[in-house]
Amino acid sequence: MNDLNGYDAEDLQPGMSATFSKTITEADIVLFAAVSGDNNAVHVNEEFAATTQFGGRIAHGILTASVISAAIANRLPGPGTIYLGQQLRFKAPVRPGDTVHACVTVVSVDLAKARVVLSTTCQVRGTVVIDGEATVMTTSRARRAKV
Amino acid sequence: MNDLNGYDAEDLQPGMSATFSKTITEADIVLFAAVSGDNNAVHVNEEFAATTQFGGRIAHGILTASVISAAIANRLPGPGTIYLGQQLRFKAPVRPGDTVHACVTVVSVDLAKARVVLSTTCQVRGTVVIDGEATVMTTSRARRAKV
Amino acid sequence: MNDLNGYDAEDLQPGMSATFSKTITEADIVLFAAVSGDNNAVHVNEEFAATTQFGGRIAHGILTASVISAAIANRLPGPGTIYLGQQLRFKAPVRPGDTVHACVTVVSVDLAKARVVLSTTCQVRGTVVIDGEATVMTTSRARRAKV
Amino acid sequence: MNDLNGYDAEDLQPGMSATFSKTITEADIVLFAAVSGDNNAVHVNEEFAATTQFGGRIAHGILTASVISAAIANRLPGPGTIYLGQQLRFKAPVRPGDTVHACVTVVSVDLAKARVVLSTTCQVRGTVVIDGEATVMTTSRARRAKV
Repeated sequence: MNDLNGYDAEDLQPGMSATFSKTITEADIVLFAAVSGDNNAVHVNEEFAATTQFGGRIAHGILTASVISAAIANRLPGPGTIYLGQQLRFKAPVRPGDTVHACVTVVSVDLAKARVVLSTTCQVRGTVVIDGEATVMTTSRARRAKV
Repeated sequence: MNDLNGYDAEDLQPGMSATFSKTITEADIVLFAAVSGDNNAVHVNEEFAATTQFGGRIAHGILTASVISAAIANRLPGPGTIYLGQQLRFKAPVRPGDTVHACVTVVSVDLAKARVVLSTTCQVRGTVVIDGEATVMTTSRARRAKV
Repeated sequence: MNDLNGYDAEDLQPGMSATFSKTITEADIVLFAAVSGDNNAVHVNEEFAATTQFGGRIAHGILTASVISAAIANRLPGPGTIYLGQQLRFKAPVRPGDTVHACVTVVSVDLAKARVVLSTTCQVRGTVVIDGEATVMTTSRARRAKV
Repeated sequence: MNDLNGYDAEDLQPGMSATFSKTITEADIVLFAAVSGDNNAVHVNEEFAATTQFGGRIAHGILTASVISAAIANRLPGPGTIYLGQQLRFKAPVRPGDTVHACVTVVSVDLAKARVVLSTTCQVRGTVVIDGEATVMTTSRARRAKV
């Protein structure tokens, strides 16, 4: 562990996994519209959204993906991690009131570069709503030893 | 165009491009921490962030990426677009007060499936801070004709 | 059109109209109370509001009016417009969950001054909840030619 | 006074006045963009706004006007007042960090209808940024006596 209580590259093994969960409320959708500038009718206009294939307002895909960011930052590898990349496939809609479970699992560790690939999945009531992969740089005892 | 004033698949040609820009304020970082649950110290703790390689608080990568969502939803292809996937590479930090320019450019159009691939780049003062690629489904005149 | 994709004065004709719609959620009422400082019990105290003629919490009148601002800024005349004045008559209450349709219609255009008067109406399920009139200054090709 | 500590129509005289003041922060502008749906570049894009006559981001006019709503609801006539109408003239820009003083002054009282007209002015550092007039319905002792 590093002194922020996050994992060093040396602590990580393929298959280690962690989950962070968050309910996506109407308020989250309103606030995400603000920070992103994305006021798409399917997110902010219930009457329009009710006429679409979704049958009502849905959360922005990137809002749901943001829970992955929390899983990485808060849980695995945790504090000290630097986000290098994220691949996202949006598979199913998330509605106000749904609880998103973001699960991150170590796929591979490159100790020399302290780079880690994680599979990243968001589920709602057992249905995968996002899958994808994150690439991060972690802290490393080898590196701290050199400094 | 569809009746939401967005582009149909038939309107799109490789090379078409559009930009949406937004200044990332301290408030955006606070609100994104709230909606994501990502309270990483590098985003919310100025004293800690000042000791890192970044020299101060930075925006969450996914917050910066959210401006791409606005560029797609508001501009190109615009209203009516469904987000299928997004690939992101985080290249450089974004700080409170930085203005992010999210530029989306049509790479390819699959008319049969109404699927469009866009290159997606976020820049701050001319520096690429995110690059990547979005896959979306657009509305289509062919499909409306069938219904 | 100007280079922000908004209408110049020369593009506008009496009768042109556009609509922007937004669902007013509980979160919007909370946030508007915050930004305005208006914590009137009829907006933030359900138990009190239930005893009034409204039978429950209602949105602030100026919150509903704010959707007009979006219709002008996003749609007609769109980006580049400067807001000079707004007259509002509050006709009926708006409740959390109601979708407000703000419709703006060009009434008159003063080409010499690039001033435009618009009628501005907000409706919920076909009932007018606000009517009034906006005065705006638009961009103008004549003016750009002089510079 | 009514039992909410607001003024009845019978308590009001032309010339009575009250002020509510609020600093408009960057956070207020972000949140108002959310609740209104108004993401005009002059409010959310510092680089663009710097190129305009305003020289930087400005608050939405209706956001500044919302402080009038607080002055009426919190101060004069205060709790129990119903907002019937508001006329607004936007005279000068308000920037993040500016403190808006919303001053409301009784112009006339119609005791039979419990209707009150107030002049409504917003100032920043002594400069009028909004002027206009509000029409409201107040509580009334005559009416309570009848019920």
